[in-house]
Amino acid sequence: MPKKVDHEARRQEIADALWRIAVARGLDGVSLRDVAAEADISLGRLQHYFRTKDEMLLFAMRSVSARADKRIRERIAAIAGVGAEGVAAVPPPRAVLREVLAGMLPLDERSTVGALVGVAYFTRAVHDERLQEEARQGIPALAAFLADLLRQVHDGGGLRAPYAEGDLRDEAMRLISLADGLSTYILLGVHSGEEALRLLDAQLERMWTDGR
Amino acid sequence: MPKKVDHEARRQEIADALWRIAVARGLDGVSLRDVAAEADISLGRLQHYFRTKDEMLLFAMRSVSARADKRIRERIAAIAGVGAEGVAAVPPPRAVLREVLAGMLPLDERSTVGALVGVAYFTRAVHDERLQEEARQGIPALAAFLADLLRQVHDGGGLRAPYAEGDLRDEAMRLISLADGLSTYILLGVHSGEEALRLLDAQLERMWTDGR
Repeated sequence: MPKKVDHEARRQEIADALWRIAVARGLDGVSLRDVAAEADISLGRLQHYFRTKDEMLLFAMRSVSARADKRIRERIAAIAGVGAEGVAAVPPPRAVLREVLAGMLPLDERSTVGALVGVAYFTRAVHDERLQEEARQGIPALAAFLADLLRQVHDGGGLRAPYAEGDLRDEAMRLISLADGLSTYILLGVHSGEEALRLLDAQLERMWTDGR
Repeated sequence: MPKKVDHEARRQEIADALWRIAVARGLDGVSLRDVAAEADISLGRLQHYFRTKDEMLLFAMRSVSARADKRIRERIAAIAGVGAEGVAAVPPPRAVLREVLAGMLPLDERSTVGALVGVAYFTRAVHDERLQEEARQGIPALAAFLADLLRQVHDGGGLRAPYAEGDLRDEAMRLISLADGLSTYILLGVHSGEEALRLLDAQLERMWTDGR
């Protein structure tokens, strides 16, 4: 009987090998052959799944995003808790907003792996329009999601300063950019993860009506 | 008579070659030999100036910072203008703050070159403590400079929201992080330089007393 191969699992194993290299030393100068060696498969087998480094990187990046997404959903579910009747409560939009932004920061091993794969993606994407598509689609979608949360906070009277409609979308994009910049400076050792989280939380506190 | 070599100029020529490669395709997988070829000198001569890719990258990064610094100083001088007696006026701290932050964004060819060298630096620095020193020294110094400008605006009654002393330092660090994140998304084509500048200016407007 021929052995049944789970192609998706194999693809993920290869992406995991790429991650390990990305974390250990970055992907600068890393070849498909290096990744095949790390995944302990032949180059030919690897190329059956990924023809180019960029294809592999894009898969790894999507995989990172999916895991980050899952992690953030779990954190939000944990906040929401479970109601008396076993029904999950709806978490407050402010808390969801905070978890999404905090979830962007490399604060533990898992999220640091994600951030380092993100660095490898970024490095190549600045020179590759096709790779940029991922960010060009993903970031505006994230901004729209956060803007919707801000609108909910706003409509509940939770925002201190006045905001026009477009301002909320702008604020969402600034918060994403802030989290991105704070992450960069964690990875460069300029500040710790705790310090970055403190700076983010202080910013959110300044925005809410019951903040300082 | 032996030919006199201007070593600093030669070093800069090599850094310029590195820049050209960084802009054209990034430094992923680029060797000292590649840079020597681009600079049209032998590998041996290049190694007389830079023994490793990281040494060269660090020099290129410092050179980028120095040029950005000069560019920002020129912009500030242009704002200050020259007084009636030929004496330069002191530019308002808000305007200086804005120019420094706007100067971080890749808005034209020169600043885009700087940003792309910055990406190459970042990519390697996340895996190299020695390279991180540059950011670990530079970013807090920049934050202190911006915090001082914020303090001047604050003391002149120009800040809308209340700020405690430490808050100004935090705000400075957040503004730097914001500018860094906005730059990332320019380089990824998520938004244009104009849009990033608009988001930055809107943030500053929200901070000033005579803003919205």
